[in-house]
This record gives sequence, structure tokens and C-alpha cells, in this order.
Amino acid sequence: MINPQGPFLLVDEQRWKRNIQRMAQKARAAQLLFRPHFKTHQSRAIGQWFKEAGVQRITVSSVSLAQYFASAWKDISIAFPLNIHEIPAINELAHQINVQVLVEDLTQVRALIQGITHPVGVFLNLDVGYHRSGLAPHDYQKMDALISEIASADFLAFKGWLGHAGHSYRCRSKEEILSVHQQSQEIVTQLKQTYASRYPQALISLGDTPTCSVAQNFEGVDEIRPGNFVFYDLTQQAIGSNTFDEIAVAMSCPVVAIHPKRNEAVVYGGGAHFSKDRLSRPDGEITWGQVMAEAGHTWGQPINGFYLKSLSQEHGILSVPPEQIATLSIGQRLLIAPVHSCMAALCMGGYLTTDGKQLDHAIQ
Amino acid sequence: MINPQGPFLLVDEQRWKRNIQRMAQKARAAQLLFRPHFKTHQSRAIGQWFKEAGVQRITVSSVSLAQYFASAWKDISIAFPLNIHEIPAINELAHQINVQVLVEDLTQVRALIQGITHPVGVFLNLDVGYHRSGLAPHDYQKMDALISEIASADFLAFKGWLGHAGHSYRCRSKEEILSVHQQSQEIVTQLKQTYASRYPQALISLGDTPTCSVAQNFEGVDEIRPGNFVFYDLTQQAIGSNTFDEIAVAMSCPVVAIHPKRNEAVVYGGGAHFSKDRLSRPDGEITWGQVMAEAGHTWGQPINGFYLKSLSQEHGILSVPPEQIATLSIGQRLLIAPVHSCMAALCMGGYLTTDGKQLDHAIQ
Repeated sequence: MINPQGPFLLVDEQRWKRNIQRMAQKARAAQLLFRPHFKTHQSRAIGQWFKEAGVQRITVSSVSLAQYFASAWKDISIAFPLNIHEIPAINELAHQINVQVLVEDLTQVRALIQGITHPVGVFLNLDVGYHRSGLAPHDYQKMDALISEIASADFLAFKGWLGHAGHSYRCRSKEEILSVHQQSQEIVTQLKQTYASRYPQALISLGDTPTCSVAQNFEGVDEIRPGNFVFYDLTQQAIGSNTFDEIAVAMSCPVVAIHPKRNEAVVYGGGAHFSKDRLSRPDGEITWGQVMAEAGHTWGQPINGFYLKSLSQEHGILSVPPEQIATLSIGQRLLIAPVHSCMAALCMGGYLTTDGKQLDHAIQ
Repeated sequence: MINPQGPFLLVDEQRWKRNIQRMAQKARAAQLLFRPHFKTHQSRAIGQWFKEAGVQRITVSSVSLAQYFASAWKDISIAFPLNIHEIPAINELAHQINVQVLVEDLTQVRALIQGITHPVGVFLNLDVGYHRSGLAPHDYQKMDALISEIASADFLAFKGWLGHAGHSYRCRSKEEILSVHQQSQEIVTQLKQTYASRYPQALISLGDTPTCSVAQNFEGVDEIRPGNFVFYDLTQQAIGSNTFDEIAVAMSCPVVAIHPKRNEAVVYGGGAHFSKDRLSRPDGEITWGQVMAEAGHTWGQPINGFYLKSLSQEHGILSVPPEQIATLSIGQRLLIAPVHSCMAALCMGGYLTTDGKQLDHAIQ
């Protein structure tokens, strides 16, 4: 689906390789299992680079994504509450590779027992404070019931607890991120103590990009699953996960209209390309992307005041600094850092590298 | 890309056929050219029904969408400011079918003159008050320059003015929509008077879904191009374009987690399916979708207080009325009206009809 004449998602190979190396190195240093979340890039080609960094297990957000990666990856966790309608597809996957699923309700375990005929690992979904899904940390009664139901099944193996501290996305400083991380660590440390004698092998799997990017101490944690860090984006930068020059993707958008009187320009690049994910700027305005200076085949620093102020399906409307407006020309390409790289990649269904190679995306 | 075990976009054939019939009938009654915008459904199968309603010309939002429809439609307007990099692709299309493009800058016309070797119709992009793109209504100097440049070219034909009153999306009543429509009519009536003697054949093409749904008087307008009306959605209902039972699409989402203490449930269905387009509810909360009652193979009325209160990439978090929470079960499917049907269709890349047929979408 890459259209080199339209908007396309440019990836800077040096940057994402550096991002992978850095996170893999941090996991090694902390003796953590590193199971990166592939829902961000959804690319076999980019996955290959994780292999070269020594990664052997991955996380995905859907059964279809697990199917997409099953030819290259033999150990996949589907970190989304089990959709019982997909158990036949999971069973087929489990025939080929190691699969772990996520549950929080007895109905899910019973449906697995009915439908699974190959070994499947089962994690309990743990709410570490995000309150999106998962079991409350002290709900031992429900946990015990789930674990004993899992233990009773021929093909199911209890693997441990899996949590996602998604409330770290509301943070706006490293200190706030570390405080979220500490809260998770307290929760999982107590869980481990409670279950250590009965389930000494059970793992604690955590891992959102903000805490994995910022924290150094992972006591109580066995496995991390960050995803977004491979590309980062404006949201992660606002949270405090990364610096601007670690952002590894940019939408390349042709200018199609210039309106000097309003200091605005229109690019071909809208909600169909960036998604409609938005971000509050420090000045209180809402944005959908930030224009960056060109720098050879890649991009440099953000240009102050030059940002997407509005998006329709195909149009991106830019706020243009007065000193920039006269330099713009119809057809010129602008490089725009997205607010949310996972969603932009999902919309685009493919990548162009800064040196001209095309890379795949699961949704092409 | 339809996954009948995951979330899928259900379409009610009776409803969208009724929506098409009603709009086609209104255009006929007002003696308007009816050139519906196909960016909403992006489906050859649904397009076929427009043919059966007598439609012969269509509008699209991109060159790639024009390519997708060119096998079935011989007269296509690309209602997006010309991206000069796609002129070779437009030229190829113009070799097969009638193509109209949209310009607002001399650079665009000159690039067309350089690259076009088959007849192409050219509309001037007119700003009727939305201020997204287009020429100011009284900028006769620029219009004259553009028209004379077009007229000088062997393969270009000046077709008229094309405007989009997208500010109608900010309306919240029929009265407000009609006031936007009247503003457009005043603008185009004056334009027609100004250019009548020189370009008596030039057309006025307007047409957003709100004004086309509500207005009865189209004086001064020659052609309408609504798109969203084929499905409608929660946004259009909030604007005042449609009643709830005219909404012709619903996302079918399996329940994957239930949290009675918070009166919340989680469905498989997130930003990857609905898009991240949001809407303010009358109670001031933000929503991404509204749960509707089941009614046989289709859906009935909205259930009060039962709506998407948050979306992540794959998760939809529902606010559930206390009296509903005990009735929910894991695996149950909920039918959710989307905030923006065009974007949801774009995310999903295909449809299931309420009687089980699969329908195509350009991005599959």
C-alpha cells in the first residue's frame, strides 16, 4: 500500500536500530526476559532486527498478528484479554509454536479447556493501576479459582501474571513515570510473596514504553514487553520517555495548498494516515503532528510553531510560522512526526526507509 | 480482512439502500447532478447500488480510490487539492475515463499542463466558509488567472467551482445547518452572476452530508456530492443530519472483560477498528461509540448510558448502566454505532451485511 507519490511513512533505520539495541541492552543488564510488543511496527522486516539483537520471544495484540508472525517467531504472547471466539485459531497456532494467552474470567479458562488440544500458556491479567482490564491485585479468591482451573486442564499451563501500566501515558515527567513504576513493583512483589511457595516458576510480565524507557530498577519483574519504543513519537516525548531525536518515524506529506493570510498550509496526509490520535501541546493547543526540519535523507529538529492543527480524512491543516510561509511551495514534502506511531503505522500499512527500501506491515 | 471471530463492521442493507434512494430522489426533485462521494463506503459492491439508483458519476478523495473505482465508473471527480506528484497516475486514468481534478494554485495548473496528455476537467477549489482550503469567494484576480491558464491548455477544460461546507460539522441543529447552507448559496450565486456571461457552462458543485440531508432549496447549486449519508453515524446524528434509525453501520464487538464494581466492560474493538474520532455527548462526556439494542439480525434503539468511554489500540472500554452489567457475558457480541462511519470503514477494510454477505472495501 506504499504510494511514493502520496503520503508515506518514512523510517530511519539507524534510529530504530539504536532504540532496539538500547532496550535489549537494558533488559540484559537487568536480567529480564525481553519480549517486545510487535503491535507497534507489525513488520517482519523490522522484527528481523530484533532477532539480530538477540530477541527470541515476542508479544502481539491480536490472534491475527500472531498468525502473521508465526512463520518467523516460535514463542508469542497474545497480550489481549482472550476473545473466546478465536480459540480455534489459537489452537491451530499452538500446534505450530509456543503461544501464551491472557485471561481474567473463569468463562475464558473453561472455553480454553473445551477448545484447546495443544499446549497453551496462560497468564492472568493483572490490573496494576491502569483500571482498563485485569484482576485487582488482592483478588486472591478469583486468582486461586482461575489458577486451579488452569492447573486442572491437560493442555493449559499457568505462566504467571501479566500487567500493563497504561496509566504511565498520563505522566508528563520522568518522576511521575517512576512513581507509576514503583506502584507496579509494590503490587507484583506482594503477589510474588503470596504465591512463591505454591507457584515458584510463575512469572511477572510488565512493560509499557514509558516505564521501560525510564526505569533502571526492575526488582520483582521477570519479563518486559514494551512496544512503542522502537519508533517513539510525540506522545512518548511529552510523557518523558524519549528525546526528540530518538523518534524513528516521520510522515512524508506533499503540500497541496498554501494560505499565507491565515499562516496555514494543507498537506496530503489526514486521519487516514496519521489516525485521529491527538496530543495537547505545552501552549494548550491540540496537535496531530509536528513538522521537522529536513536533514539530508532524514530529519532534524522540530520547527517551532509548525504543526498539524487539524485533520480531516485526507487533509492535514498546518499552522505555519510567518517566517516559513513564504518558503513553502506546492508539491514540497514536509516531514511530520506523528502523535502516535503505532496508529500511524497501522493506517499506512508499510514503510519506506530513509535509504529507499520498502518494509512490510501486517495490514498492507 | 473481515474476521468473523473478531470485531467486524456490520451493515444493514435495507438502511443504506433507503439512505441512497432518499438522497437520489432529493437530487432528482431539485434537478441537481448527483455525484455521491465514495470515500465513505469505498466499496464496489455498495457502489453497485448507487448505479441501480440511477447514479452515473462519483466523487472520490484520492487518486488511488479513483483507480479502485475506474473499472466500474466512467466519470470520477477527485475532490482533493491536486497533489502534483500524482499527475502521471491521473493522466493514465484520464486515458480510460472522464476525470475531474481540483486546483487552487497556478503551480498546480502548470504542472497539469506539463504532464497531462488526455482530456481532464478542472474545478477551482472554492472556500465557502470552512477555511480549510480553497480560494476566497471574491478573489476574482486569482480565479481569472487560473481559468485563463486552464483555458490555454490543450487537454484541460474549466468545469466550474467546487466547495465543501465542512463547517456544517460544527452545527448542532437543523437551523444552524440551514444557515451554513444559505451562506454557501449566497457565495455561489454571486460567483455565477459574476462569471455567467464568460463561462455560462461552469458548474457549482457543493455537498456535505449535513446540508444535503437537511436543505430543500438548492438554488444556485448544480451538483451535490454528499458521502457520509450512505451510512450516517453518531456525529451526523449530533449535527442533526439523521435520525438514529438511519444509521446503517454498527461495529460488532465481543466482550472480553466485565468489571461490575466500576460498571465497565471491555470489548475487542479499539482505535484500530473505530479510529480515534471522538464526539462530545450531551452530558459533556466524550464518546467513541454507542451501544444499541439487538433486534434480530440488525439493531434497534441506543441503550441509554451504554457507550464507549475510552479506546486503546485494540480495547474498547464501555460505560455500562448498572442494570445492564449483570446481564453481560464474556464472548457476547455488542453492536456499537461508530462516531465516524467513514473512518471506521477505512479501519475495517470490509463489511458483513446483516444477512451474512461480505462486501469489499478499497483498503482490504
